[in-house]
Amino acid sequence: MAKLSTRNRLPGTVTEVVKGDAAAKVTIRVGDVTMTALITRDSADELGLEAGQEVTALVKATDVMILTGEGDLA
Amino acid sequence: MAKLSTRNRLPGTVTEVVKGDAAAKVTIRVGDVTMTALITRDSADELGLEAGQEVTALVKATDVMILTGEGDLA
Amino acid sequence: MAKLSTRNRLPGTVTEVVKGDAAAKVTIRVGDVTMTALITRDSADELGLEAGQEVTALVKATDVMILTGEGDLA
Amino acid sequence: MAKLSTRNRLPGTVTEVVKGDAAAKVTIRVGDVTMTALITRDSADELGLEAGQEVTALVKATDVMILTGEGDLA
Amino acid sequence: MAKLSTRNRLPGTVTEVVKGDAAAKVTIRVGDVTMTALITRDSADELGLEAGQEVTALVKATDVMILTGEGDLA
Amino acid sequence: MAKLSTRNRLPGTVTEVVKGDAAAKVTIRVGDVTMTALITRDSADELGLEAGQEVTALVKATDVMILTGEGDLA
Repeated sequence: MAKLSTRNRLPGTVTEVVKGDAAAKVTIRVGDVTMTALITRDSADELGLEAGQEVTALVKATDVMILTGEGDLA
Repeated sequence: MAKLSTRNRLPGTVTEVVKGDAAAKVTIRVGDVTMTALITRDSADELGLEAGQEVTALVKATDVMILTGEGDLA
Repeated sequence: MAKLSTRNRLPGTVTEVVKGDAAAKVTIRVGDVTMTALITRDSADELGLEAGQEVTALVKATDVMILTGEGDLA
Repeated sequence: MAKLSTRNRLPGTVTEVVKGDAAAKVTIRVGDVTMTALITRDSADELGLEAGQEVTALVKATDVMILTGEGDLA
Repeated sequence: MAKLSTRNRLPGTVTEVVKGDAAAKVTIRVGDVTMTALITRDSADELGLEAGQEVTALVKATDVMILTGEGDLA
Repeated sequence: MAKLSTRNRLPGTVTEVVKGDAAAKVTIRVGDVTMTALITRDSADELGLEAGQEVTALVKATDVMILTGEGDLA
């Protein structure tokens, strides 16, 4: 079975796909949070991403930042 | 009020902080998911990160990948 | 007060915003240097970014590369 | 001579450049593998990227993920 | 079958794994090129990475830079 | 002459290098700002990085975030 070093995995549902010429923006509902991914348009096409689809958002550990006291940040 | 272009924000609780000489690994419980962040040890020290602390994990839209059919990936 | 693990913070002034369908390119003058950010168009809209605005460019420590002897690189 | 901390360097040939308003997608043939880069349109213009050009794809060590047992991942 | 938006996939063989407290450096031979990945030590442990293992290096399109005229860069 | 798609280039002076087993933290003074880079220890060794050295910090456009109203963020 395939194993990936990327352990941050957030299951959710695609809510919107906006396609530009080179890039695509994909919005995913993860629990109470809305996440946004900016990927290549090709990847969006090849995965056949569309609203309602069940997907998992993956993030490398080196790409996670940590915020404390979020109340002051909009 | 401060506003940040990074809109992916996942609130959670720190469960573990492991510090090396240069890097630190921070584990965060976000809903049902465990996330891992690899940041500089300095940042971990300056934020005073420790188990039990409420934090928010932030991720840029360009750092989110999308997986479909997760069942086959461990 | 909110605290962020991302300690690389470069204050500057927005000089240009170019919006595509999914992505936006934002140019920022930081001291003598011009920086470019590629963010989602949504973020650019929500922050109301426009030329002349004072902003801060943020960069994770894991996203910084180091070049020595720049004279030979255009 | 210029030296760069980024040691992952994959020589190849540009096979396609697709330009949007803000972003550009560049496809590069590296040995038997096709790689895709999503960069700013400005960079693509300034480097004069076009099909047939010899280039080198660069990747930071913190941006490399590792997959084992790829057979199960499409 | 699982499908991942990350299309840059470079098959190779692990040549070295160096583990620190928080981070691990993994060296991979990909064709004629040596690649280096900096991942969390946990991921290296969980994938059981060791010299001689067949793996695939994955890289997001937004993490690929392009260099022309490499002769002048060491 | 070598040309790189990464156009964000901040010239500065190395002020500190902290080496772990796998990772190294490099601190760079850029104008009035202190920047931190987390790179592999190998890269730090191969570039011979040490305090006092003139270097250039490079950052991809997709790795730049934008903050407005920084006053409220520590």
